[in-house]
Amino acid sequence: MQAVILAAGLGTRLRPYTEDFPKPLLRVAGRELLYRHLRLLKEAGVSEFIIVINPRHERHFREFLARHPEFPCTLVLNAEPERGNGYSFYLAREKVKGPFVLTMGDHVYEPAFVKEAVSCQGLVVDPEGLFIDPEEATKALCEGGRIKALSKGLKRYTGFDTGFFVLTPEVFTAAEALVQEKDEVSLSEIMARAQIPCSLLAGFFWMDVDTPEDLRRATYLLVKRSVKGAGDGLVSRWLNRRVSTWVSVRLVDRLTPNQATILTTLLGLLAALLVFASPAWAAVLYQVSSMLDGIDGEIARASLRTSPFGGWLDSVLDRIVDFSFLLALGLTFPPQGTLEFSVYLLAVFGSVMVSYTSERYRGAFGRALHAEIPLLRRIPGKRDERVFLTMVMVLLGWVKGLYFLLAALTNLRVLLTLILVWRAKGR
Amino acid sequence: MQAVILAAGLGTRLRPYTEDFPKPLLRVAGRELLYRHLRLLKEAGVSEFIIVINPRHERHFREFLARHPEFPCTLVLNAEPERGNGYSFYLAREKVKGPFVLTMGDHVYEPAFVKEAVSCQGLVVDPEGLFIDPEEATKALCEGGRIKALSKGLKRYTGFDTGFFVLTPEVFTAAEALVQEKDEVSLSEIMARAQIPCSLLAGFFWMDVDTPEDLRRATYLLVKRSVKGAGDGLVSRWLNRRVSTWVSVRLVDRLTPNQATILTTLLGLLAALLVFASPAWAAVLYQVSSMLDGIDGEIARASLRTSPFGGWLDSVLDRIVDFSFLLALGLTFPPQGTLEFSVYLLAVFGSVMVSYTSERYRGAFGRALHAEIPLLRRIPGKRDERVFLTMVMVLLGWVKGLYFLLAALTNLRVLLTLILVWRAKGR
Repeated sequence: MQAVILAAGLGTRLRPYTEDFPKPLLRVAGRELLYRHLRLLKEAGVSEFIIVINPRHERHFREFLARHPEFPCTLVLNAEPERGNGYSFYLAREKVKGPFVLTMGDHVYEPAFVKEAVSCQGLVVDPEGLFIDPEEATKALCEGGRIKALSKGLKRYTGFDTGFFVLTPEVFTAAEALVQEKDEVSLSEIMARAQIPCSLLAGFFWMDVDTPEDLRRATYLLVKRSVKGAGDGLVSRWLNRRVSTWVSVRLVDRLTPNQATILTTLLGLLAALLVFASPAWAAVLYQVSSMLDGIDGEIARASLRTSPFGGWLDSVLDRIVDFSFLLALGLTFPPQGTLEFSVYLLAVFGSVMVSYTSERYRGAFGRALHAEIPLLRRIPGKRDERVFLTMVMVLLGWVKGLYFLLAALTNLRVLLTLILVWRAKGR
Repeated sequence: MQAVILAAGLGTRLRPYTEDFPKPLLRVAGRELLYRHLRLLKEAGVSEFIIVINPRHERHFREFLARHPEFPCTLVLNAEPERGNGYSFYLAREKVKGPFVLTMGDHVYEPAFVKEAVSCQGLVVDPEGLFIDPEEATKALCEGGRIKALSKGLKRYTGFDTGFFVLTPEVFTAAEALVQEKDEVSLSEIMARAQIPCSLLAGFFWMDVDTPEDLRRATYLLVKRSVKGAGDGLVSRWLNRRVSTWVSVRLVDRLTPNQATILTTLLGLLAALLVFASPAWAAVLYQVSSMLDGIDGEIARASLRTSPFGGWLDSVLDRIVDFSFLLALGLTFPPQGTLEFSVYLLAVFGSVMVSYTSERYRGAFGRALHAEIPLLRRIPGKRDERVFLTMVMVLLGWVKGLYFLLAALTNLRVLLTLILVWRAKGR
């Protein structure tokens, strides 16, 4: 399948960013708008791209494409961008060989949107438009599965124009006719004239980027939507994620996911060292590092930089940080007698095993443990909860009690996991 | 694709096992010969089976098939088995619709053989026949890629007849002619007459089962070949595997893999308890449980009973046994001072983390860590080596030294894994 991406707009409302620079190459959550289109469409099965651009930006696009040889692209130059985006679309006609996707280079779509949208027909219409300004948006009126009208000013409408189309080359007949009739042609006119089909798709994040405020908003929403919350514990949901997404929005353009992993690890190790000077401050810093523990994953997903290595590294380093903190705390408050010694060892062992049982499960079954055994989501003992508990107990001065609690919580959770997995999978 | 399985033989040399029972339903390494054909052929893409049987065994076959509705089978009755296996084959002709696989119901093939053989053409000929008696075997002479002669007595031959064929229905023309000509027809005559193609395939385990001794030998070889040695440590290769395969051969018909996992776990936990009475005997029992740790996997692979759950359970319980032993030993020989206390904690943590880093790697990348970073195979610290070291050091009375060694070995291995994986995957 081919895709046509319209990227010839002048982006006047984004000055000074677009003074001498094309809007589709501006970055949102660490990636150029255009990169997002190419990457997500390629993952959805598109193998060839036709990008219509303004010749004065040709150098920027060529540089971008040279950095990304993984996307087979043809540039089509529109020397008369003032003739409208319908005219830009018309210029792509000779390169199109069959059914194709058409997207607007100044739109942002979350990955799940693109995945669904490519199997739609005609214009993808969002009946809700949760993330856009209804005043500003182009509305679509569909009747009998086809577009009847398409414009900003519609009073009665089915939904909002997402700028994402799945088309056949016949649509160029209407384009041709309109280009003959008049100088300035909008895409909406062509699509309304061609009465292309329309498909409804709701619940996903997409928006068009027109102003500097939109750039920030799109970054913010991409980060928010990238929270993979299903495996989060209570503390993560209510506290850590709020902090980590606030930070991720600000760092997503500046840090790679692995850099974020290293930084939060260093912070955690620093907290462990600080135990010897001030256990209370150390515990607070430990909780801070835990609040930031989510940013590597958030940055990775929002900037389309997830990697198996990143996930592996994050998990292994988390275990090392947790052990270091428990070791430092254990040296500062050494166990008295065999019972306490056992409990310290059990706390260290159980803390690793909570993660071991669930990661080993993913290795064996290829699925997340909490997805198959939802009860485990509601049982405490996950890392965010352990770290928070550690902070609270250290601040209260109940270090020995902390080890007892950790030993009990984690090992009971492991035992319960054994029983539940046996029941679900052991036949 | 269809498969024809010849299972009408009388199995006279396997009496008393076959007094009133068909040979293809005898068990080898925990599974009926016929089950192995059906299961492995199905996994290789065969979707329909035609089994030629002796009517006096019909009841046994029907019972077997009722227990295994996952295999769509048609039974063809051969009321005159004395007319030879060529005649049995001839009777299957009306059920065959296109290219098909033909196998002998009294042969055993290891899974890798079947996987390769189904994409061969004509008779699969093994030029080496590593696991069979060359005197007894049928030999094949191939010229120009076709069978020229096929019999036991050949002096000059290309290799051995594996009893595995990939054929087209044309071969039934030669069968028909021979059945018209004479009363007793052997499969070899038909194939030689049809001059079917031949393909060479060497290095895999296969054999035909004729005598009670063959039954034992096939079980033994299936267990031996099921050792998945690539991830084994030194002690496993030189000691533990020799013991575990000896035991597996004897238990494969009696234990399920999960029962074997539970038994070795109980043995390991018993060893941990025994520490309080006699550390030396406990250490020996711990090593015994480690030598038996491989039998669950061996039984599972040899009897085609591997499962993601079994792998998960084995890993989790191994961690628990190791921790229990270190805990018991630590209580019996408590650490003195903060240095020893740290070392004890590090030994417990490192022992889990060696496995954590490699299992988490499989979860992330879907491949074994040692397969991608072969250097790790030669670095000590794996479970078999840790347990053996534990036994030796406890017997020598150097328990504190053991914790120092374990702490160093395991944590250095984890550190090295971090560095090597970073270099290989971190870009």
